Amino acid sequence: MIIGKIIGNVWATRKNESLNGHKLMIVEAYQYGGGYSRQYPFVAVDTIGAGIGEMVLVVTGSSARVVLGQNNIPVDNTIVGIIDQIDIPPEHKD
Amino acid sequence: MIIGKIIGNVWATRKNESLNGHKLMIVEAYQYGGGYSRQYPFVAVDTIGAGIGEMVLVVTGSSARVVLGQNNIPVDNTIVGIIDQIDIPPEHKD
Amino acid sequence: MIIGKIIGNVWATRKNESLNGHKLMIVEAYQYGGGYSRQYPFVAVDTIGAGIGEMVLVVTGSSARVVLGQNNIPVDNTIVGIIDQIDIPPEHKD
Amino acid sequence: MIIGKIIGNVWATRKNESLNGHKLMIVEAYQYGGGYSRQYPFVAVDTIGAGIGEMVLVVTGSSARVVLGQNNIPVDNTIVGIIDQIDIPPEHKD
Amino acid sequence: MIIGKIIGNVWATRKNESLNGHKLMIVEAYQYGGGYSRQYPFVAVDTIGAGIGEMVLVVTGSSARVVLGQNNIPVDNTIVGIIDQIDIPPEHKD
Repeated sequence: MIIGKIIGNVWATRKNESLNGHKLMIVEAYQYGGGYSRQYPFVAVDTIGAGIGEMVLVVTGSSARVVLGQNNIPVDNTIVGIIDQIDIPPEHKD
Repeated sequence: MIIGKIIGNVWATRKNESLNGHKLMIVEAYQYGGGYSRQYPFVAVDTIGAGIGEMVLVVTGSSARVVLGQNNIPVDNTIVGIIDQIDIPPEHKD
Repeated sequence: MIIGKIIGNVWATRKNESLNGHKLMIVEAYQYGGGYSRQYPFVAVDTIGAGIGEMVLVVTGSSARVVLGQNNIPVDNTIVGIIDQIDIPPEHKD
Repeated sequence: MIIGKIIGNVWATRKNESLNGHKLMIVEAYQYGGGYSRQYPFVAVDTIGAGIGEMVLVVTGSSARVVLGQNNIPVDNTIVGIIDQIDIPPEHKD
Repeated sequence: MIIGKIIGNVWATRKNESLNGHKLMIVEAYQYGGGYSRQYPFVAVDTIGAGIGEMVLVVTGSSARVVLGQNNIPVDNTIVGIIDQIDIPPEHKD
């Protein structure tokens, strides 16, 4: 899974109907040291009630689809947790 | 999912017959700031009636196949939405 | 799917027996402007009768396996079309 | 599979309920020469009782999900072994 | 599939029990011109009796799992052939 930060929303009126009712969030991947990868933001479906600015856990690939319980839904990134804390002991920070 | 822009079409007379009737679009991935990744354009099947120049939502991997409802179709990128708007609050733009 | 060019063949006498009878082609991924990514050529199974030098459509991942109709075949890249033409309108070329 | 080193933990109180009881570890990918890729740490579920600082074997994608025996669990990286030793003969070190 | 070279072995006493009896090889991906990508070696299960120093065909993702005939085995890279020869005609070498 990826650690990411939600930075915005995407709106699409014309879309596959199985996406109706799902929130499409723009997420940036976490980089070591606390920064985020700006270059390639991606879109993830939220299942947890996460909001803009929150640090989240994102699952990718077929696991992102099966967790939604609809086998034919066109989803490959799903937000499955809101991260409270990241613990890295000092000896592993360098 | 990826945010992309449709920049062209690919034509293939000799192809796997399950691809007949599907439009094959060339898509560039969105990069932060509004640019697009020119280097590696990819091919996606359109399911939504999107046209050249439109910004679209593209799903990848096995989810791109199952949304088409044909289990053996050789597809790994599918256009599943036309993006109307991207909202990124100012405090997350920098 | 990826646009690629076939540049050669790979021969393997000792291999998983489900690969017998399949042609293993070396493919380079297309880069914008007409060049090809030389650095990491990959191997794809041909299903369409494509030859060296031809520009082809390659599907990846589990979709490359299921199109072959043998569920346990160890294949993750399959050539599923020969590309006749790529159309990119001038306004999307820059 | 990837060789990685566990460098920390992630805590998420609000998460998909199928993740309850699973330890979420932060892992860095091994780079040749003994270093680790700091830039993009990822999150993996531990199934083996591994601890911070240990070198582990991580499986990715749908294989990371099916090994857990719960088909709908949102996991795409799973720690499946603790590495005791890496043997690379001298003639393959350069 | 990827062309790779086996450069070593990984030993793990504590591991998922479905991995017992499988040899875990360290593989480097082939780069054009005959070199190998040193930076990110990966681990693959051998099914073909390949040895250190041999050039092999490696399948990735879910296809690497299903070829083993055990649906829940945590494997995402499998060696499925030993490469005898790579043929690239001179006009495609530049």
